[in-house]
Amino acid sequence: MDGKTPSETAITTYQLMMPGQSNPSWSEDGTLELGSINGGAILNLIDNVAGLVALRHCRTKVVTASIDRMSFLNPVHVGELLIIKSSVNYTGRTSLEVGVRVDVENLTTGSQHQTGSAYLTFVALDKQNKPMAVPPLIPETPEEKNRFDQAKIRRAERMKNIS
Amino acid sequence: MDGKTPSETAITTYQLMMPGQSNPSWSEDGTLELGSINGGAILNLIDNVAGLVALRHCRTKVVTASIDRMSFLNPVHVGELLIIKSSVNYTGRTSLEVGVRVDVENLTTGSQHQTGSAYLTFVALDKQNKPMAVPPLIPETPEEKNRFDQAKIRRAERMKNIS
Amino acid sequence: MDGKTPSETAITTYQLMMPGQSNPSWSEDGTLELGSINGGAILNLIDNVAGLVALRHCRTKVVTASIDRMSFLNPVHVGELLIIKSSVNYTGRTSLEVGVRVDVENLTTGSQHQTGSAYLTFVALDKQNKPMAVPPLIPETPEEKNRFDQAKIRRAERMKNIS
Amino acid sequence: MDGKTPSETAITTYQLMMPGQSNPSWSEDGTLELGSINGGAILNLIDNVAGLVALRHCRTKVVTASIDRMSFLNPVHVGELLIIKSSVNYTGRTSLEVGVRVDVENLTTGSQHQTGSAYLTFVALDKQNKPMAVPPLIPETPEEKNRFDQAKIRRAERMKNIS
Amino acid sequence: MDGKTPSETAITTYQLMMPGQSNPSWSEDGTLELGSINGGAILNLIDNVAGLVALRHCRTKVVTASIDRMSFLNPVHVGELLIIKSSVNYTGRTSLEVGVRVDVENLTTGSQHQTGSAYLTFVALDKQNKPMAVPPLIPETPEEKNRFDQAKIRRAERMKNIS
Amino acid sequence: MDGKTPSETAITTYQLMMPGQSNPSWSEDGTLELGSINGGAILNLIDNVAGLVALRHCRTKVVTASIDRMSFLNPVHVGELLIIKSSVNYTGRTSLEVGVRVDVENLTTGSQHQTGSAYLTFVALDKQNKPMAVPPLIPETPEEKNRFDQAKIRRAERMKNIS
Repeated sequence: MDGKTPSETAITTYQLMMPGQSNPSWSEDGTLELGSINGGAILNLIDNVAGLVALRHCRTKVVTASIDRMSFLNPVHVGELLIIKSSVNYTGRTSLEVGVRVDVENLTTGSQHQTGSAYLTFVALDKQNKPMAVPPLIPETPEEKNRFDQAKIRRAERMKNIS
Repeated sequence: MDGKTPSETAITTYQLMMPGQSNPSWSEDGTLELGSINGGAILNLIDNVAGLVALRHCRTKVVTASIDRMSFLNPVHVGELLIIKSSVNYTGRTSLEVGVRVDVENLTTGSQHQTGSAYLTFVALDKQNKPMAVPPLIPETPEEKNRFDQAKIRRAERMKNIS
Repeated sequence: MDGKTPSETAITTYQLMMPGQSNPSWSEDGTLELGSINGGAILNLIDNVAGLVALRHCRTKVVTASIDRMSFLNPVHVGELLIIKSSVNYTGRTSLEVGVRVDVENLTTGSQHQTGSAYLTFVALDKQNKPMAVPPLIPETPEEKNRFDQAKIRRAERMKNIS
Repeated sequence: MDGKTPSETAITTYQLMMPGQSNPSWSEDGTLELGSINGGAILNLIDNVAGLVALRHCRTKVVTASIDRMSFLNPVHVGELLIIKSSVNYTGRTSLEVGVRVDVENLTTGSQHQTGSAYLTFVALDKQNKPMAVPPLIPETPEEKNRFDQAKIRRAERMKNIS
Repeated sequence: MDGKTPSETAITTYQLMMPGQSNPSWSEDGTLELGSINGGAILNLIDNVAGLVALRHCRTKVVTASIDRMSFLNPVHVGELLIIKSSVNYTGRTSLEVGVRVDVENLTTGSQHQTGSAYLTFVALDKQNKPMAVPPLIPETPEEKNRFDQAKIRRAERMKNIS
Repeated sequence: MDGKTPSETAITTYQLMMPGQSNPSWSEDGTLELGSINGGAILNLIDNVAGLVALRHCRTKVVTASIDRMSFLNPVHVGELLIIKSSVNYTGRTSLEVGVRVDVENLTTGSQHQTGSAYLTFVALDKQNKPMAVPPLIPETPEEKNRFDQAKIRRAERMKNIS
């Protein structure tokens, strides 16, 4: 099985935050407002984009096995643009870690800031839903090699927590 | 500010997994099938229910600050019933930990099994979006007291990771 | 076929009313507002929850046969929490009546009031979509026995209207 | 206030039943299928179309006060066309009855059959959410006059049930 | 194969513009508002209604082959009623042109104005997804005959652009 | 007002085609299938992405003025990945043309092919919804300069059709 580089399968995608994804909220004078975006809606987008990257690397069915602890650095608002960058950090035998970075762009000013990052582990499954080998990752740039090493450490940490 | 017990604000809610929430999937003969449910869709539900519990405890606006590492023990399928149980585990000064347990019921047989559990931290905000004090939690049963103690340990662990 | 008690299959579920479910509405100065929730959206939730209860009782496919006259006592607003309680009231040979009570919780004050109640009749179907026998209901508490008797009267009333 | 005829505000609308509105269902060999459409989804459409007709008659905010008992004569399936006909049957001082008839068209054969009908009562509200007078209905055709008379009888029946 | 008249398959349908279909927008004082409706949401409705008309004419699977240049004459707002009129203009051997006219009704005043019109070409497909002959169109009224002739000219124009 | 290059505001975004966006369809043996994706759903995505690019160029409210004739070269199926590339082609005084190219990736094989392309014209609006000047486009590469010239020709063509 031929290996793949992170850049072959990486995705950057864009999502305008719409009124339907916001929490209802109340302003100081008690009237209802379009509030900040649900944390759950953002988790949903993160998992979807990471799952696409995992699918492009494995070219077989993948399922989310776990998501590492993540923090929301800043609230996201209706009318802001979410920029979701995702690539494969590390591959094991039948699983792989995908990293996601979420930035927010204010569409009226163009300023951007980070709102969170996440590490998700996916398992590749064959037609009988049994774990199957994934193509090895070939990190190329120093940054990709560093991400690979950091992901290896996180993986050992996860294994320790399970046993 | 009067304290509240976990049972005053706990919620158990039910969600039938519908075709629109599934990943597209391919059967052994190559035809398209309604597959398993997106991990992201389940994360979305977990965050929404936990947020409702936090909101009922604080009776003010709350935002998700973080979600702890969580594993998906079993895939969830279209046509299964998700049972989401959520209650407050611990309160700090302006934040609180909410626990969620997710079970799946096979609607044709009635059998249930656990598919995951999660710990989410929320921060309470006043009208100017500044953190504000939350009512203290009053754990009553031995199980609630144990959850409180475990959450306190997790909280110390999170603080250590930040600094 | 073993009977089942109402409490074995009863469900209480919770739904936050979101901006996407509201009617557009106009305030006194002509500006557009997030209005009250569609009656249709609430009917949809009522039927879905009642259908789950019927499905849990029968453990086979069920279809809505009819919904009795229902009134909306109070409008429901975006940002309020709908609490939907549903249980089996009565079983005939191949059909069953499910009762639903809908309460609304103001999330900032915690106050609750009833907004409606409904009686729905479902028919159980086998794999060939033919009506099939449903497990008998075993009402246990005085309240459950009273509901059973009231449902029997409503059923006779419905039969009279058909013939 | 000038009266209006039923035909001035009547609406016939069309809705293709999509996979996202169906119940999950299981075929005879146990595989999952796109099943029949939720009764709740159809109730939602009925209320929305009837609400539009009421709004066109009153040209002010209207809210659903009640829906009369309705039966589902036939299940509706994904890929069928729902044809929803709705017009005002009767006006009181601040409320009005709207009738809805729901037919289903098989898109591959063109054959149509009725699947249900419903009577909904709406109340007109002014800017302070107080009931306000509605324009009188002017039934013109014998059919419209007959509907008016029948609706008047149903209204008296509803009043009797309330008191 | 028997021909069909335009009126046999024509559809006029109604859609209330809801908050979930609007762009986020900012008022003069910088606060967020429910804005105008997405052009894309309206294109979606136009294609769906035209596709239904084409399906009713052909009674077999149809796919959109092209949409002619269209202009949006007026912005559409949340809370307005879209009235979409669609009928077959012209049939070729395996394709047909469907015309759509979109009007907007202000629900508080009842005034209507046109917001756009579109011409879509659909191709009829058999079970093997091969183009198949469509029933000939029989235009009856002078207006229908004029539409047929205009559509024939547009078709020749499209052919010229392709070759 | 400083000009902007096409690459400053260009977006490439990714969208997995889900069951909820498909037409219902019938297989050769008459059973219902998840069919091809609605042309309307793809038009919706095209308009949304092009609108984001226009918004990033103008940093003020933009509305779709027109969409040029577009063809769908290949049907898109549930489970395929849509890749939508969009950038500004041309700027007039208060309007701009945005180009969109839509490719489809088969996620199991990785093969890609083009499914369509579109040219949309947007108008920039100030706070009073009056057309306002847009920043001039600065095409840099030969390809960008060629697109600019081609768009200028299309624009002249559109003007001719209007007058």
